[in-house]
Amino acid sequence: MEQVDLLIFNISQLITGASPTGPKRGAAMRDVGLIENGAVALKGEHIVAIGRSKELVAAYTANQVIDAAGQVVCPGFVDPHTHVVYAGDRVGEFELRIKGASYMEIMSAGGGIISTMRAVRAASVEQLVAETRPRLDAMLQLGTTTVEVKTGYGLDTTSELKMLQAIEELDRTHPIELVPTFLAAHAISPEYRDRADDYINFIIEEMLPQAAEWHQNSTFAGRPFFNDVFCEQNAFSLAQSRRVLEAGLALGLPPKIHADEFTPLGGVDLAIELNAVSADHLDVTPPSAQERLAQSNTVGVVLPAVNFNLGSSHFAPARSLLDSGVALALATDMNPGSSPCPAMPLVMAIACRYQSLLPAEALNAATINAAHALGLGHRLGSIEVGKQADLLIIDASDYRHLAYQFGGNLVKTVIKRGRLCPEKH
Amino acid sequence: MEQVDLLIFNISQLITGASPTGPKRGAAMRDVGLIENGAVALKGEHIVAIGRSKELVAAYTANQVIDAAGQVVCPGFVDPHTHVVYAGDRVGEFELRIKGASYMEIMSAGGGIISTMRAVRAASVEQLVAETRPRLDAMLQLGTTTVEVKTGYGLDTTSELKMLQAIEELDRTHPIELVPTFLAAHAISPEYRDRADDYINFIIEEMLPQAAEWHQNSTFAGRPFFNDVFCEQNAFSLAQSRRVLEAGLALGLPPKIHADEFTPLGGVDLAIELNAVSADHLDVTPPSAQERLAQSNTVGVVLPAVNFNLGSSHFAPARSLLDSGVALALATDMNPGSSPCPAMPLVMAIACRYQSLLPAEALNAATINAAHALGLGHRLGSIEVGKQADLLIIDASDYRHLAYQFGGNLVKTVIKRGRLCPEKH
Repeated sequence: MEQVDLLIFNISQLITGASPTGPKRGAAMRDVGLIENGAVALKGEHIVAIGRSKELVAAYTANQVIDAAGQVVCPGFVDPHTHVVYAGDRVGEFELRIKGASYMEIMSAGGGIISTMRAVRAASVEQLVAETRPRLDAMLQLGTTTVEVKTGYGLDTTSELKMLQAIEELDRTHPIELVPTFLAAHAISPEYRDRADDYINFIIEEMLPQAAEWHQNSTFAGRPFFNDVFCEQNAFSLAQSRRVLEAGLALGLPPKIHADEFTPLGGVDLAIELNAVSADHLDVTPPSAQERLAQSNTVGVVLPAVNFNLGSSHFAPARSLLDSGVALALATDMNPGSSPCPAMPLVMAIACRYQSLLPAEALNAATINAAHALGLGHRLGSIEVGKQADLLIIDASDYRHLAYQFGGNLVKTVIKRGRLCPEKH
Repeated sequence: MEQVDLLIFNISQLITGASPTGPKRGAAMRDVGLIENGAVALKGEHIVAIGRSKELVAAYTANQVIDAAGQVVCPGFVDPHTHVVYAGDRVGEFELRIKGASYMEIMSAGGGIISTMRAVRAASVEQLVAETRPRLDAMLQLGTTTVEVKTGYGLDTTSELKMLQAIEELDRTHPIELVPTFLAAHAISPEYRDRADDYINFIIEEMLPQAAEWHQNSTFAGRPFFNDVFCEQNAFSLAQSRRVLEAGLALGLPPKIHADEFTPLGGVDLAIELNAVSADHLDVTPPSAQERLAQSNTVGVVLPAVNFNLGSSHFAPARSLLDSGVALALATDMNPGSSPCPAMPLVMAIACRYQSLLPAEALNAATINAAHALGLGHRLGSIEVGKQADLLIIDASDYRHLAYQFGGNLVKTVIKRGRLCPEKH
């Protein structure tokens, strides 16, 4: 009998999410790799065996066992697009918007990205860490074990680096694993008002090299560090976006892109051309670009909590993207303005209702494909032998409950790197 | 110094929800009765003092104190419309609907109310209690301290009474306080297919008298017990609805009504005429009926989680109802088909985004007005001296976060009848 650290057995549905190679597409999205009456054995930070409960119980002795009768075990959620590190909130802006204030009225009342930028510039690294930690706690309780986090509320070199330091500190001290993305090109810095090209030059000449240097000297060295741009009217043009992403590539930072949220500027094709790991939002991506995205390695990330938060009846054409063959992932876009939502399960619930995803497709989009949207599909996002032991015990006997029920929290236990996280508190 | 059992002090925002008399309407809905740096003192099951923290700390000694610095205290949520007692689930139907199955296809695949009826008929009281208890646990963790529960999945005398017995057992043994509603007229019983009038006669002659007798002999004697009907095409006509509700009134059961969910049959005017405690759904209530409802004592209950669950872009005209002067309340409609949602906070979040309610209006609609929708506004729904001590400590310093953030759970502590419920687990 081989000795392991943790054996979870009697699992009603073990959802492995196993995928032969690369992100899932098409019919594979309907396959969650379900093993009935399953078991999983963990050793250290890794998964060492999966299979039928009877077989694993016979083959392994464990320091700790969990009887998961009547429960589902599935991969931990990967949230591949967030802005969760910030200071302050935008609850006043939320109320103004309900009252019918226009975007410009909100801006002049001190709202929008720039208001969060002011709060972030005024905060210390310690304050950013302290304000973000409870948000990560909430995400962890809701089953998220890996979170991408963008900078982009600093918009000057010092403050962008400060955000990176906060991300590093949180990754080091919180059970959730963070993946940093540099997003100085989130909005035009107020110092460069009406001079977007000059701001782009500044990003390319000063900020990106310093960010790349930070990465080499940080605990993220050897791990992914992405470079992102908000390609949108009133943000950055396609040409400006290309310059930022190519400059990042030259420094070894693989690209991501905010594309087609409000206006189709061609960001998806830029992502494909630059072999970006993901193209995100895709609310107004035309069918022809969807077809091209389907032929690429770039994962399409949709963010339906944003549309929900705006009270919109328009959502990204996720069903059409899936049917075209795009490798689709889901994310919260957690941020204080357009998505104050820590919950991947609710994102799945919205996607099933407003984007016609099946529960299986939503789950694959929130796990294995989300991991691929971070270039981490080889290590995270599914329950397979050799992968990191990031998994959830769900208080339901059928995985579809994760999307069917909504507003509560079915996640009973979170296991990150083989360790049980504190139960919900 | 007066002795109390529990003193919560240093509260950033004490939201009393105080209302002079009756449910809130119009401008009063924007007033949450906010006391900054507040405190509340509890003795036994009741609230004995509210005020500024400094004053209460000087005036009371307490067996237990809670420092709520940086936090909100607000009334416990009252969920005035649910079908939370049931057996089984309808997750298969959920998936069928995403695949585009029609209502009739779902019916013939064994879906709909009748499928839950079969599961309930087959279940014992103990099974109903055991299946419902974790749902109530979830609701309690999300801050709901009082829940109305309808029968209507039995559709024969034995099974309807069995549901009432389950409600009684749950009310007796769970921290959440339940309010029973008799809804034999939820759907036409299969035994009376195509004979709705005969089923109505049966309800009036046999079921309602037995339900009224049960009430007199139950722990609910002296407490509200409502009689409800689903007034809708393919359910019960206006004339049939009137007969059921009048028969209940004759037995001492005050009426509620499911009105205008899909078709405006005149249910709102019937509710007004019979002085019903509430008229619920109101998705297609015409403006003229809204005006008449505003002049009545009947609370209008809207259920936006149902619209969300159906992926609809149509929601009840809650803003218009409010502006007309209707006393508006919110509820989950928790049920296995159209709303598998235990979460009043998410209902508030939906209402703010898709029905343009302000956070203050949503909070009043989920507390004091919801209590009035159950005829319990004199005892529940606000934090006032003499009222039952049902209140929440919220992990945010501004009450608007309850609607601004969504998908997680900001409820830190639930106090029901003066007792701390177990923390989230």
